[in-house]
Amino acid sequence: MTFDRVWLDANLCTMVAREGDPLGVIEDGAIAARDGHIAWVGRRADLPADATTTTQCDGAWILPGLIDCHTHLVYAGDRAREFEMRLEGASYEAIARAGGGILSTVRATRAADEAALVAAALPRLDLLLAEGVTTIEVKSGYGLELETERRMLRAARRLAGLRPVSLQTSLLAAHAVPPEFAGDADGYARHVAEDILPAIAAEGLADAVDGFTDSVIGFDLAQTRLVFEAARRAGLPVKLHADQLRDDAGAALAARHGALSADHIEYANAAGIAAMAHAGTVGVLLPGAFYFIRETHLPDIAAMRAAGLRLALATDLNPGSCPAPSLLLMLNMGCTLFRLTVAEALAGVTRHAAAALGLSDRGMLAPGLRCDLALYGISRPAELCYWIGRNPCLGRVVAGA
Amino acid sequence: MTFDRVWLDANLCTMVAREGDPLGVIEDGAIAARDGHIAWVGRRADLPADATTTTQCDGAWILPGLIDCHTHLVYAGDRAREFEMRLEGASYEAIARAGGGILSTVRATRAADEAALVAAALPRLDLLLAEGVTTIEVKSGYGLELETERRMLRAARRLAGLRPVSLQTSLLAAHAVPPEFAGDADGYARHVAEDILPAIAAEGLADAVDGFTDSVIGFDLAQTRLVFEAARRAGLPVKLHADQLRDDAGAALAARHGALSADHIEYANAAGIAAMAHAGTVGVLLPGAFYFIRETHLPDIAAMRAAGLRLALATDLNPGSCPAPSLLLMLNMGCTLFRLTVAEALAGVTRHAAAALGLSDRGMLAPGLRCDLALYGISRPAELCYWIGRNPCLGRVVAGA
Ligand SMILES: [Zn+2]
Ligand SMILES: [Zn+2]
Repeated sequence: MTFDRVWLDANLCTMVAREGDPLGVIEDGAIAARDGHIAWVGRRADLPADATTTTQCDGAWILPGLIDCHTHLVYAGDRAREFEMRLEGASYEAIARAGGGILSTVRATRAADEAALVAAALPRLDLLLAEGVTTIEVKSGYGLELETERRMLRAARRLAGLRPVSLQTSLLAAHAVPPEFAGDADGYARHVAEDILPAIAAEGLADAVDGFTDSVIGFDLAQTRLVFEAARRAGLPVKLHADQLRDDAGAALAARHGALSADHIEYANAAGIAAMAHAGTVGVLLPGAFYFIRETHLPDIAAMRAAGLRLALATDLNPGSCPAPSLLLMLNMGCTLFRLTVAEALAGVTRHAAAALGLSDRGMLAPGLRCDLALYGISRPAELCYWIGRNPCLGRVVAGA
Repeated sequence: MTFDRVWLDANLCTMVAREGDPLGVIEDGAIAARDGHIAWVGRRADLPADATTTTQCDGAWILPGLIDCHTHLVYAGDRAREFEMRLEGASYEAIARAGGGILSTVRATRAADEAALVAAALPRLDLLLAEGVTTIEVKSGYGLELETERRMLRAARRLAGLRPVSLQTSLLAAHAVPPEFAGDADGYARHVAEDILPAIAAEGLADAVDGFTDSVIGFDLAQTRLVFEAARRAGLPVKLHADQLRDDAGAALAARHGALSADHIEYANAAGIAAMAHAGTVGVLLPGAFYFIRETHLPDIAAMRAAGLRLALATDLNPGSCPAPSLLLMLNMGCTLFRLTVAEALAGVTRHAAAALGLSDRGMLAPGLRCDLALYGISRPAELCYWIGRNPCLGRVVAGA
């Protein structure tokens, strides 16, 4: 047995949970890669063979490359002025008059060509990668018409060619009702289901379809169902922004459709949580948005634990409600605001985040999985959650390289 | 008139407030330095003379170098394990048995020599400097006996020699009651006032004296008064950790002693706020600690505004209640959690932070002040507050170099 590459003198946080050791720690460990995959993981003393390339890690900790499973990375425009006005007491009307709100991002994104979208998103992507992210999900949703939704997803695909990263796209055409359909959410949902979604699916631009269910500012259950049924016809898995601002029974809807994930879920009720756990739908917690909009209603973590729900953590990086290009900060916020344990938070950005994207080939350090690694200069894994705004990432490995 | 150095093609956020323009913005501006001080600030078109060295800033924004006016930067040990245990539901007793709590930091700091304290603090200092900080305050307070308090302050002075930064030290011997004085806070306060403080002052190791007033876990008003009177005898200005966890009338005490600042002040009452404003005592807000300990009682910003209180913002960087080496993140937290305006937040890390340290030679871009600058790749100053966990700092200038 020979390997392409071996990492030595590292402590491993494999995320392969064992009784009494949810992080699956291996001190003084080694990892070997072959053909882009992990070929061997264990204690260094047990390493069975040599490799062409050997990397000494000087006692660094290695985790599975981090996975940010919910981002709105691709957009144009700037919402800092709106942020400033809001703090000065400006009303929503005044902000809208000054060109703020989500529709300002829609306008700017519609006006940007693909190259401009790529150029705007690339520095944000680089910030996430610098923290050890090796897989990222990117949604559309600021076009709200076919051309721009397509352009956003193409820009996302382009980004994946510019950096060593795995990138999963989600079509979120049903993110908001565009001005062209003002007052006609039904009509726009039908347009998404009948026109936008089939066209995007035919081009292979989306790995999943996402929705935004909210009884006041989003789409209702019937409208979301229309979109999800179109996704099923197109053979695409679904995800849902659910129960962020109130209990809209979004968690149960996501579960009923076998969604990969229901995201936000601060207000998800007990029946919805149970249904998600039963359906295998992952709960994606987005503490940065919770923080930024000053939400006070906590997700019912105790009920989620009791139900055995898998929980992921993501940035929700977006210009309106979470301008936070830092997944490490979300580890701290998940622990601090939602009282996740360190083990839960780290699972949330590794193996459970993989599950939220329907990916079974990553998220742990185990033979046969992709060799996506993140290396950190820390004394123990808990430091990744403990620090607020500190990035101890020493390097990344994507598919063994 | 000749200058040593000129910065061109920059937008200036001078922080010299003007009617309707609290940031004192000068677009397409220039700054000239001579002998380490700002010799000229204005529109580039009006620049009166040349310089030996000219720096093109490519449209970057220049602010006064940021000032972090409240840190516990120097300490030894690691509290990440304690953080992890707490999230797993460990009791305070269990954490104390496992060696956690502030006394664990005291133990580790007492055991560390000066070189070890410097080595531990330097990476944390570098993180702050990388964001544009040019002046930092550093407290002692993990020795709680003369030798270690002195060693912490010497380590702080050493740090200032290792990096281009202005560093102000505060003696915080009255931070907690050490094990040697368990149950005898009175006795320890007398020891601080009669022995530790005079010795430290005689060596010139402290620029100010800080205290920690809290009726349950800190020192009471009489004990704090003892320490403050000793500070006055030694000719040192005072500061106070006040009213963080409950209303202990700490704000009024700080004002009565003409303190440079009263810090935390979430629970400061109206009389205390009025007294601070009258005495010129700056209110130092520490939103990172508010966040980390999940405090819910907001400082009464409306009352502070109405009283004309000057408000600073700082990291409170410390291992137990705010492991946050990011002053930029505090800008966002000050706006998001405390609803400061962008102008208030930026004043809080520049001119009001200078006032909190008793420094009148910095905190604005104005002729005669120190030429301490921070350069940022942003489109408008509000971006410094808007982003969560993003550092757009392009460079720093300290005393013109
Ligand atoms: Zn989202
Ligand atoms: Zn403090």
